[in-house]
Amino acid sequence: MAKQAESKSLQKLANLRRQHKSFINIMPLQTGGMLTEAAQKALVEFGDGYSVCDFCLGSLCNITNPPVREFAHELLPEFLGCEVATLTYGARDGIFMIMHSLAKPGGSIIVDGNRHYTTVVAAERVGLNVIGVPSSGYPEFKVDVNDYVSLIKKHNPKLILLTYPDGNYGNISDARRLGEIAQEYDIPYIVNGAYAVGRMPVNMEGLGADFIVGSGHKSMASAGPCGVLGMKRKWEEIVLRKSEAYGNKELESLGCTLRGTPLVTLMASFPYVKERVNHWDEQVSKAQWFSRELEKLSFKQLGETPHQHDLLHFETPALYDISKHVRERGYFLYKELKERGIWGPQPGLTKAFKLSTFAATKEQLQFVIDSFKAILNKYG
Amino acid sequence: MAKQAESKSLQKLANLRRQHKSFINIMPLQTGGMLTEAAQKALVEFGDGYSVCDFCLGSLCNITNPPVREFAHELLPEFLGCEVATLTYGARDGIFMIMHSLAKPGGSIIVDGNRHYTTVVAAERVGLNVIGVPSSGYPEFKVDVNDYVSLIKKHNPKLILLTYPDGNYGNISDARRLGEIAQEYDIPYIVNGAYAVGRMPVNMEGLGADFIVGSGHKSMASAGPCGVLGMKRKWEEIVLRKSEAYGNKELESLGCTLRGTPLVTLMASFPYVKERVNHWDEQVSKAQWFSRELEKLSFKQLGETPHQHDLLHFETPALYDISKHVRERGYFLYKELKERGIWGPQPGLTKAFKLSTFAATKEQLQFVIDSFKAILNKYG
Repeated sequence: MAKQAESKSLQKLANLRRQHKSFINIMPLQTGGMLTEAAQKALVEFGDGYSVCDFCLGSLCNITNPPVREFAHELLPEFLGCEVATLTYGARDGIFMIMHSLAKPGGSIIVDGNRHYTTVVAAERVGLNVIGVPSSGYPEFKVDVNDYVSLIKKHNPKLILLTYPDGNYGNISDARRLGEIAQEYDIPYIVNGAYAVGRMPVNMEGLGADFIVGSGHKSMASAGPCGVLGMKRKWEEIVLRKSEAYGNKELESLGCTLRGTPLVTLMASFPYVKERVNHWDEQVSKAQWFSRELEKLSFKQLGETPHQHDLLHFETPALYDISKHVRERGYFLYKELKERGIWGPQPGLTKAFKLSTFAATKEQLQFVIDSFKAILNKYG
Repeated sequence: MAKQAESKSLQKLANLRRQHKSFINIMPLQTGGMLTEAAQKALVEFGDGYSVCDFCLGSLCNITNPPVREFAHELLPEFLGCEVATLTYGARDGIFMIMHSLAKPGGSIIVDGNRHYTTVVAAERVGLNVIGVPSSGYPEFKVDVNDYVSLIKKHNPKLILLTYPDGNYGNISDARRLGEIAQEYDIPYIVNGAYAVGRMPVNMEGLGADFIVGSGHKSMASAGPCGVLGMKRKWEEIVLRKSEAYGNKELESLGCTLRGTPLVTLMASFPYVKERVNHWDEQVSKAQWFSRELEKLSFKQLGETPHQHDLLHFETPALYDISKHVRERGYFLYKELKERGIWGPQPGLTKAFKLSTFAATKEQLQFVIDSFKAILNKYG
């Protein structure tokens, strides 16, 4: 790198700024991960590397100051509805830990057709064959969990997994029914709750699952990377097995995972997160109302209707038509929304995109609706 | 959990505080991970979950805003002295990625006897046999890298690894000579630079290594969890191989790793870190002076003498003797130092402990020396 270019690059790094920090945020990846005030304070307090580990005696989940032990061993299992919980870098990392512990290369896993890409990548990293349960396709993309049965009989999988809800359409499949199926065929069952845990009430045992993973940065008001993993006690000695050489170190977490700042944000936000899931019905009504209003503007909501989650996927042909005739092409929408203080659809997309109503108030969402209307009128 | 106990636990979480934030810090785990002012600002700016990913088009290391691409593809390889670099959760995670990509269960790896425990745990997670090159033992614990040769001939390992320096004694082995041996026997060679990268000048190619791992939270003025991994171009298609199902997603990072706050602290601190390694000779003199002064107090420095790194391990029988006769037992030292605003030896230890002179000024270290003297006098 030339000296001058390098000096310019270094200057940029010393002054990193986020463009739309105070915007109305309706980006699905982000609406559940916005920090509470307590988490913002904890972030600064425990910003320095390894400061979480001040009083560590060799095991992250047993640190008493800050109170990681109480959090991981008592509060978290109760919140997840499971017997044993631990901390991870994120939902995907929890899924990999389970797969890597329970299955061998060449084994099979059956997953819903709407699964996140990381489920497939984690399986591939372990060497597993992934068998997908197809959804109903356009426009609802529903997964009927009864379709797992014939595939279980055919493939004799080591594991089954359900994405609950999925991150593409926000569909809530019948996780409880799949729990019955898992028990009937005696197959360990993973619930990927990256968009559930921390947003809506979810109870692993109540769903009849063996494992549940959640994401701190996606749905628990935390900085990333950060996640949680809950399980039945019987899996503890397998997934959380200790090293033969170091009896107090867990193999799948390479000793310990979340040795840093995201963990304290997860903990600091937890009282708020625990409370907010009780207001899930209000979130669902808000999402349904927002969806109806956008449909009046000719947008078409994909996924289940009426919708049961704040993650919404819309087809927006009217916006796509505009993009074909303007200088900025697909980026016109991003620009128009940015001017109005709204951050949501992935920049460049106009044909179809995902939104989340989780973090915005009804007043803010009304402003979003009015803004879409104004944009359509401006170019229409 | 009973309601009242739970409410108390939740209250604690909402108000997490660190006890010795403004103390003189000589704890080896922490002295290289203290944030710069730029990193503290970036922390707050990008605290919310997934805010690093605002403009992600599917690959973390290709994000241009914030400038991750420039950092990971240009600045970092130049800094590490390698052809290809990527981001990880930490040094241990980088080591696991390499082992998991290059070796199969049942294979062997030869490592130095002073290796960090995570090297052994990562190998065990992959299913590798670990063969250790013994150190010279008490009191210097030196590793002669020429001792790798006979073990290479005997075990035909898939990989060799050197901890440079090790985290127990701060010994700097002859990494360059091991590079020659690795090349002679054509065995991929990993340098674990968790205590080197970001503290002292280190150049992977210069050492003749195939891989280097570094730790953001340990030595690059970053929040945790956060690390870097550098390699020769020829390993890119193996360690950073893409998913068959998702052609733009790397398998070993499950799509992407550092999707969050620690990454922006790593980037924001980088200009400072890049500069500070140029002053390594001053750090070494400071460590040597501090060691000599403590030896005058009857403490015995273990590891190489004269020492070549800020990480110092002392035997302190005089303090241990005191601990046997005081009410607080081993914790008396922690308490005495805390009263003086010093944070360093692991609470409870008095017989032997590690210290690091990296973050403290000479004046602060003089105060530490005087404090040890005063404590010895008080009880002596």
